[in-house]
Amino acid sequence: MLHLESDYNNGAHPKVMEHLVETNNQKSISYGFDVWTESAKAKIRKATACPDADVYFLVGGTQTNATVLDSMMERYEAAVACTSGHINIHESGAVEFTGHKVIALQAHNGLLTADTLRQYMKTFTADADNTHMVQPGVVYTTFPSELGTIYKAAELSELYDVCREYGLKLYVDGARMGYGLASYDNDITLPFLASHCDAFYIGGTKVGALCGEAVVFPRKGCMPKHFFTSVKQHGALLAKGRLVGVQFDALFTDNLYYNIARHAIDLAMLMRDMLQRLGLKMWMQSPTNQQFVILPNDVMKRLEEKVVPSVWCPYDDENTVCRFVTSWATDEKEIADLEAALKDAIAGKA
Amino acid sequence: MLHLESDYNNGAHPKVMEHLVETNNQKSISYGFDVWTESAKAKIRKATACPDADVYFLVGGTQTNATVLDSMMERYEAAVACTSGHINIHESGAVEFTGHKVIALQAHNGLLTADTLRQYMKTFTADADNTHMVQPGVVYTTFPSELGTIYKAAELSELYDVCREYGLKLYVDGARMGYGLASYDNDITLPFLASHCDAFYIGGTKVGALCGEAVVFPRKGCMPKHFFTSVKQHGALLAKGRLVGVQFDALFTDNLYYNIARHAIDLAMLMRDMLQRLGLKMWMQSPTNQQFVILPNDVMKRLEEKVVPSVWCPYDDENTVCRFVTSWATDEKEIADLEAALKDAIAGKA
Amino acid sequence: MLHLESDYNNGAHPKVMEHLVETNNQKSISYGFDVWTESAKAKIRKATACPDADVYFLVGGTQTNATVLDSMMERYEAAVACTSGHINIHESGAVEFTGHKVIALQAHNGLLTADTLRQYMKTFTADADNTHMVQPGVVYTTFPSELGTIYKAAELSELYDVCREYGLKLYVDGARMGYGLASYDNDITLPFLASHCDAFYIGGTKVGALCGEAVVFPRKGCMPKHFFTSVKQHGALLAKGRLVGVQFDALFTDNLYYNIARHAIDLAMLMRDMLQRLGLKMWMQSPTNQQFVILPNDVMKRLEEKVVPSVWCPYDDENTVCRFVTSWATDEKEIADLEAALKDAIAGKA
Amino acid sequence: MLHLESDYNNGAHPKVMEHLVETNNQKSISYGFDVWTESAKAKIRKATACPDADVYFLVGGTQTNATVLDSMMERYEAAVACTSGHINIHESGAVEFTGHKVIALQAHNGLLTADTLRQYMKTFTADADNTHMVQPGVVYTTFPSELGTIYKAAELSELYDVCREYGLKLYVDGARMGYGLASYDNDITLPFLASHCDAFYIGGTKVGALCGEAVVFPRKGCMPKHFFTSVKQHGALLAKGRLVGVQFDALFTDNLYYNIARHAIDLAMLMRDMLQRLGLKMWMQSPTNQQFVILPNDVMKRLEEKVVPSVWCPYDDENTVCRFVTSWATDEKEIADLEAALKDAIAGKA
Repeated sequence: MLHLESDYNNGAHPKVMEHLVETNNQKSISYGFDVWTESAKAKIRKATACPDADVYFLVGGTQTNATVLDSMMERYEAAVACTSGHINIHESGAVEFTGHKVIALQAHNGLLTADTLRQYMKTFTADADNTHMVQPGVVYTTFPSELGTIYKAAELSELYDVCREYGLKLYVDGARMGYGLASYDNDITLPFLASHCDAFYIGGTKVGALCGEAVVFPRKGCMPKHFFTSVKQHGALLAKGRLVGVQFDALFTDNLYYNIARHAIDLAMLMRDMLQRLGLKMWMQSPTNQQFVILPNDVMKRLEEKVVPSVWCPYDDENTVCRFVTSWATDEKEIADLEAALKDAIAGKA
Repeated sequence: MLHLESDYNNGAHPKVMEHLVETNNQKSISYGFDVWTESAKAKIRKATACPDADVYFLVGGTQTNATVLDSMMERYEAAVACTSGHINIHESGAVEFTGHKVIALQAHNGLLTADTLRQYMKTFTADADNTHMVQPGVVYTTFPSELGTIYKAAELSELYDVCREYGLKLYVDGARMGYGLASYDNDITLPFLASHCDAFYIGGTKVGALCGEAVVFPRKGCMPKHFFTSVKQHGALLAKGRLVGVQFDALFTDNLYYNIARHAIDLAMLMRDMLQRLGLKMWMQSPTNQQFVILPNDVMKRLEEKVVPSVWCPYDDENTVCRFVTSWATDEKEIADLEAALKDAIAGKA
Repeated sequence: MLHLESDYNNGAHPKVMEHLVETNNQKSISYGFDVWTESAKAKIRKATACPDADVYFLVGGTQTNATVLDSMMERYEAAVACTSGHINIHESGAVEFTGHKVIALQAHNGLLTADTLRQYMKTFTADADNTHMVQPGVVYTTFPSELGTIYKAAELSELYDVCREYGLKLYVDGARMGYGLASYDNDITLPFLASHCDAFYIGGTKVGALCGEAVVFPRKGCMPKHFFTSVKQHGALLAKGRLVGVQFDALFTDNLYYNIARHAIDLAMLMRDMLQRLGLKMWMQSPTNQQFVILPNDVMKRLEEKVVPSVWCPYDDENTVCRFVTSWATDEKEIADLEAALKDAIAGKA
Repeated sequence: MLHLESDYNNGAHPKVMEHLVETNNQKSISYGFDVWTESAKAKIRKATACPDADVYFLVGGTQTNATVLDSMMERYEAAVACTSGHINIHESGAVEFTGHKVIALQAHNGLLTADTLRQYMKTFTADADNTHMVQPGVVYTTFPSELGTIYKAAELSELYDVCREYGLKLYVDGARMGYGLASYDNDITLPFLASHCDAFYIGGTKVGALCGEAVVFPRKGCMPKHFFTSVKQHGALLAKGRLVGVQFDALFTDNLYYNIARHAIDLAMLMRDMLQRLGLKMWMQSPTNQQFVILPNDVMKRLEEKVVPSVWCPYDDENTVCRFVTSWATDEKEIADLEAALKDAIAGKA
């Protein structure tokens, strides 16, 4: 079976695995106080141009979102996201489980725009009865979005302006950060991002690691008090913290994190061209490693004989949106195989 | 100042107060095991034609919604409501505070329709990845709605059918239950309601009591296990439980609950006619005690010299939606006074 | 049946009821912004000698403890109480339900002492691994305690010193505040209390009201931010906030709150003398309105024919601790009746 | 520096790492539906003699305890543990964070005994007011305990009898399960354990894995409904679920899990003999891989020049309890080095 259904259907990038192996027989202080974790933190501080950043390594995306958002909010505050935001749909209510509402505003191509946020906050602050409402506290957004789209630097900057105007914090979920940075359409750098939000994470799981996300509080005062204890309280503290530290130490050596992502982007663009060459309609114009294409239901059914299913959502009664994703573990042959399988499926062959 | 801004800007109906006074000097078992509470429960079982109903008296509406919904749901479940549902907007995130997401679906005139719910559940159950999502557990709706509108019996019945088809429970917030029952457009009775949901409450605070809501689990098996302990855990248990029991004992004597509501409905209809006679546009066609009218901003501003402000939401840049509400404590003179004040305000007089 | 089992087995003190009746037919702003609530707040600020105090009226004790403690704590903090503290035993885990651990330290006659707290904090702060533990944030204590005992002013002062030394807040549960203040053994005044803690409440439910507790944040900066919204989020906001405001307005007029308590104390002392005169052993030396006496099981059983049961806890296999309580609604005849009933029960007569 | 401070100061056992490497370049279904995870589950079902067991792989201990306990309990229920139980002290209040109280009963050598539990439940069920208390729902215990001690089979069986008598579930935290099973004093097997509780986990992190714990619900009906969704809601679901599956697949091949533990036990016994030979007093008689020894403070201070600190708790003003721990990564030379370092420290040499 052809595996293009996700970027987490694989192991670690060989260089990440290599670093795990070469450090395996050494002993270390636990809970993330080991030398590799310290080294990884230093490299991330450098890559983000944030010498004062507090960096924490957590295990997975939903866990990171719930832990960081809960810690950034007061008890009476809510997270503001767009309707397609990951925390609003695909995290089993993990944020609400910590006691906070997710206020979902309209999405534009998978993104929360400055205008939408401004309009909401204008109405909210003008409402004399807003003390009877949960108070918006943190804005949640993603880079790239769940639908593969990305902000331009100017758009993110404007969004952050609105946040600061209304006293909101901005948190960026970077589960696929690398693919955003490496996109040919992108004009956002890690230092730019770090100076235009209050917290973000650099996703490892979906960009070449076995697991692990690097949470960055870019400036002094950004990290919630007693964050270490909160991480433990949320069940997110690894006894062998080195597991994630070692991986990020490798990812931030010799540009590996970026190179992994660029490889995936190149293949994604190849795939996008191929899909369009076959006359298929894209659901979303994505410049990153996730490509969403509209397939007739019968084509999709035949395709599933050879390709691991990747249904995103119904398009209409006769068509379905499918997602194809590249990663470090994708190669050109797989794109060619997908093309062949699609041609067969379109031609009515199983 | 003229007080038509709400139905909780007053004390208790005189007969309710009278019963509090006449029982005041007697001692009783606490926590709701007193004779008046028992009597009130018996009367509610009779009025709802539910001889097996479990009846609990809580203090206020937000408290009741959060306590009952949380108790009806498993940890991984969400409440489904329409966007204008009270729990989704005006309860400070009280449901989410207990760990549950509120899934907000499109509202039609303030109501969640069977069609909207069916469409959502069809999509949800068809999604192969729905184990990554919070599971819909209880449907929340209101009678009458936050916007004064009401279901027809056939509509409620259809909504409950969809709930049962998909294994969802149905809970009806009856903060203003009386005004729904007493509306001239209504064809729903308490026994009908009780047989078309899994739990509901009969609101007291807004229908003549000082405080108090009567939660009804209409059939055996409807009441969540250990509900008494959950009520205490939510801070909703009164030491002097008789305070609410005595009031409902009065409200369900000699049809008082219904008569209070009918009085308010009659005045609301009088008010609606008057508003339309003045050429004002209604925002919502409400057959109950809340009337929503669109006022030019300058008219509203002048009106506030004489009438307690009652802004509901902006209508557009020049107009505002205002809410006027009747209760047991409203009389015909107040409607006449409002008319005079409106005429002055429209004529440009403060 | 003789009712001495609690101080909440009755209605409101007649003067409280009278004020509810005389204000009943007036309209007012809702949610506690009415004139009587404002008046009550002003009187409480005066009685506590705290001109800058923020005063909020909530409905019941468990609700007040959970709402205030949760609001005073950060997410990663715990409340420290003594083992017999009400929040640790008799509140159905309401504090934990809001996400916070209750750390229970040894009780001395129902009280948490400065020494016990200091010892705990000394060990905690010396533990290099304490970031893996929930952080103590607020100290919870009661005045008077659940067992009727009271702090001396010097003891409370020392407890507060320890709190400040370790950066802990002090919260005093005053469900029976009046009976502490009116005790003949007491040397603590409301102004003294207010200057020796960070938050407390003056209990109404058990001291002559139908319901209601007055939360006092004595100084600027003591009140948690957005406390109004938190109150709503906890389901503790009354639409007709006047219900509690009017009652406290009466309770703090002409020394009524204190006089109610003093009446109960006088009868409790009469009762204590009577119990000891009968040769019964007191379980706890209580100078307040709750008296705990050890009764042989067979005596207790016979007593329950005439007196509403009031079992506190087993004493040993043959004896039980019983609690008898006085209130505004207790009179001398009831003490005499209890004496007669006890004599009969001791003499073997049912 | 000599590393004997924990069993999580190392990487994975070489055979575990080898399996990660050899599977790394294969693609797989995500979220734990891969072939290695399936294989590991089958091996665990076999090892526990539970063909119907539901097995889930989570990441760490605190996370596992909070997720499983929360899922096993109703909202109004508490977990019962002994005072030294890990969830009661060292998990930052993670269980309370999910809304549940931890009821802490007296510990006997680190263990909760059947007698202690029975006495508590007898008193609880006899209390007529226990509906005002949080309801005990699950009993939490550990094998081996946090202090290295273990139950005998008869003791565990009696504890489970008490649980069943009172309708409580029994959950066993097996963070160091292997060391209990491999202890020379042990008479409990995995199949025995599995038939004497309702849920348990087999710890990987501390027994040779990089991370990962295997939760076992031994019989049909033991697994909480929708557990997969709850795991995600608690942030405990790995996208690359294979990371833990592959490791347990290795650990349960050729008796590796047991052999790792037996190696550590043999070295721990060697260490215990050595410590006693030096005339040092053991704090706890532990037959497992954690050894607790009482050291004079000055000895300890000098020791820390050569050995990573391992303070457990103060013993008295002059002495400290230290913990030394073995694992797969410990060898005989380290025990010899510790002996030498101790001799020097005792002799006054740094």
